[in-house]
Amino acid sequence: MRLSNYFIPTLKDNPKDAQITSHRFMLRAGMIQQASAGIYSWLPLGLRVLKKIEQIVREEQNAVGAQEILMPTIQSADLWKESGRYDDYGKELLRLTDRHGRDMLYGPTNEEQITEIFRTHLKSYRSLPLSLYHIQWKFRDEVRPRFGVMRGREFLMKDAYSFDLNYENAIKSYNKMFIAYLKTYARMGLKAIPMAADSGPIGGDMSHEFIILAETGESEVYYQKNWFDINTLDKDIDINGDLQPLVDSYLSCYAATDEKHDPENCPLTEEELIATRGIEVGHIFYFGAKYSDALNASVAGYDGVENHVHMGSYGVGVSRLVGAIIEASHDEKGIVWPEAVAPFDIGLVNVKIDNAKCSEICHELYRRFHQIGLEVLYDDRDERTGSKLADMDLIGLPWQIIVGPRGLKSGVVELKNRKTGSSEELTIDEVLGKFIN
Amino acid sequence: MRLSNYFIPTLKDNPKDAQITSHRFMLRAGMIQQASAGIYSWLPLGLRVLKKIEQIVREEQNAVGAQEILMPTIQSADLWKESGRYDDYGKELLRLTDRHGRDMLYGPTNEEQITEIFRTHLKSYRSLPLSLYHIQWKFRDEVRPRFGVMRGREFLMKDAYSFDLNYENAIKSYNKMFIAYLKTYARMGLKAIPMAADSGPIGGDMSHEFIILAETGESEVYYQKNWFDINTLDKDIDINGDLQPLVDSYLSCYAATDEKHDPENCPLTEEELIATRGIEVGHIFYFGAKYSDALNASVAGYDGVENHVHMGSYGVGVSRLVGAIIEASHDEKGIVWPEAVAPFDIGLVNVKIDNAKCSEICHELYRRFHQIGLEVLYDDRDERTGSKLADMDLIGLPWQIIVGPRGLKSGVVELKNRKTGSSEELTIDEVLGKFIN
Repeated sequence: MRLSNYFIPTLKDNPKDAQITSHRFMLRAGMIQQASAGIYSWLPLGLRVLKKIEQIVREEQNAVGAQEILMPTIQSADLWKESGRYDDYGKELLRLTDRHGRDMLYGPTNEEQITEIFRTHLKSYRSLPLSLYHIQWKFRDEVRPRFGVMRGREFLMKDAYSFDLNYENAIKSYNKMFIAYLKTYARMGLKAIPMAADSGPIGGDMSHEFIILAETGESEVYYQKNWFDINTLDKDIDINGDLQPLVDSYLSCYAATDEKHDPENCPLTEEELIATRGIEVGHIFYFGAKYSDALNASVAGYDGVENHVHMGSYGVGVSRLVGAIIEASHDEKGIVWPEAVAPFDIGLVNVKIDNAKCSEICHELYRRFHQIGLEVLYDDRDERTGSKLADMDLIGLPWQIIVGPRGLKSGVVELKNRKTGSSEELTIDEVLGKFIN
Repeated sequence: MRLSNYFIPTLKDNPKDAQITSHRFMLRAGMIQQASAGIYSWLPLGLRVLKKIEQIVREEQNAVGAQEILMPTIQSADLWKESGRYDDYGKELLRLTDRHGRDMLYGPTNEEQITEIFRTHLKSYRSLPLSLYHIQWKFRDEVRPRFGVMRGREFLMKDAYSFDLNYENAIKSYNKMFIAYLKTYARMGLKAIPMAADSGPIGGDMSHEFIILAETGESEVYYQKNWFDINTLDKDIDINGDLQPLVDSYLSCYAATDEKHDPENCPLTEEELIATRGIEVGHIFYFGAKYSDALNASVAGYDGVENHVHMGSYGVGVSRLVGAIIEASHDEKGIVWPEAVAPFDIGLVNVKIDNAKCSEICHELYRRFHQIGLEVLYDDRDERTGSKLADMDLIGLPWQIIVGPRGLKSGVVELKNRKTGSSEELTIDEVLGKFIN
């Protein structure tokens, strides 16, 4: 993509009203624009990141056998009245009335709707286990939306739902999602720690939040110093095997949010404990028959007897992750994207666009990278070099290639790693060789 | 995908309330489920088709230089009050109030919002031409939603918006989209005819509907008998060249919807005219400065003088297309998917799942097709053969491979083309050879 034609309205100055880093950088890098309080439009650069995150989430859901569907944003209030949540949910539920005076709502989550789908079609234990998920916009009418996409009102969530015949199988489904979540975050370059959590308005007996560490995070978290040394994620986990020992080993390592941490009874010494801040990027729940009881979703078991299905639900904040990743990965100059979610792989800066040699080399690099499937953002704008380099640092692509007349005289360009800041002068062939292998 | 694990709740009988073919087949093939009047959940098979259509639309938008963004579903009413449409739009506009009592609405279209994005960031003719699009759920509170996804309330639309300095350039942008639309529909296996149309609530002087022919279509349409002989779509159109002669040649061929067709003044003889039915699958508009005037979106021109930008908007009904394609392509047994939008490429039927040889051959075919990137739906269910074959015809994948013990004795399987119904007996190698080339 050529920056001269690309709609990235970067800002030189810090926008007021943006209190936290990710919000500030997302506005400055032209990734989003506020539409109204807590509601954002995603501009081209922001949407690219959002789509990459969404795709990683999707692949890891598919990998554990969950099937993708898509439920609508607007739901009839009837099912929510049946489950009792229409009254319970409070003012965060966006209620509305259609032209015929029917009560509707903008879904903040979909337990009722998925249970309705289940009960319509599935009647036998032979269809189980079943996990369905969708990636859809949700609305929660936060009283004080803030922190940009981190606590917005309209937000993109992946929510999965599992259906099982009994508790034992339901825990197997829960454990699969537990591992899928760890893999999902790891692929995004994030260090996520599962922590026991309260279930809130979803309900149920067991739930875990997935927290990523970020100094600017919203909540205080506590965890065992050697957590990440003990809990390395094996790439070859047999997802259909017994996952309980693995899940237990994660959970046996101390980690707790402020809500659950009790300094009096913490088993760790002060030296073994790290107190820092974190951001919730996922939450999984096992709630048994809460919704299948209320909505009468049952299947015939092995013995022909009807059982209300055991359910769990599993959320990932897809749009929130864009902000969370920035909170976890930035410096004073801007964003530092992990490779897997970077909007482009390489930023190519033409220092002097009216220099024929610079443009020729840039076009050649652009063409060659395109050929091998690398995504390049090519800064061919007529701007000062300093401003171009500042924009590149702000946008935060993993690699920068800076092509200037001085270097070209000696046959070299500059390759810079955004994360480490280290740069080296390389010939064109050497630069290509770095990426083609 | 193995059908035994896949959530496709097919129905043997015709659902009542489904008046038209596409709605009936989508319900029977387990593609969708009604959530409430005019609002549907997309089940796995339906979602696959929706995503394929979405992706074709996206690629053809990108091909003409439009840039993808994503605007939210919920908009503040303020901009609509500024444009005057808050009062004009009528009861199809889903109005709501947030917890702080602010007037909001679920966007039925996004002219105001995109104009706000434009006016915030773009100040100079040098940023033009610019086309932005998004693919987002919309809501129109139809008084009588019907025909399944064809006239739903919550629907997926691609809407693009072009911004130009003057009329002349705006027409160039319009023409690009005109050609992009023809390409889009052609890739889906559809014969689409652009027809002059009324602008309705979008406004403006010029608009064209894209109509596909289907005997079960909603509107009567009239067109010149040799329309498709004259208007073949060249694959190598230079999208940056002068498209006016090409657009003119399309528009010089007679074609009109019922609204615009005047039998008294039709230039064609009865013999030259075909009267049939059609479905609107796209609508493009040039409306000049209607919204840029109202919302004061201007850029400085070459001479430094401020001009309100000239705009157009361009809609494709993405979810509607799923139904429309079925209306245009089915037989009495079920859907006949065009290859480009088929949910899977091949349906593989194991006639006898407890026959070791049948299963072995099926697994081998499945594996080999998977290897070369073909998508296979493998019917490994314990069901009667007749029922399996009926389901395959209903689901409508382009190719069926039927593996039974009788054929395998002679070393052959049956390859059936869903569209023509023709079938042939082939060895495994021959079948693979048909697809690997």
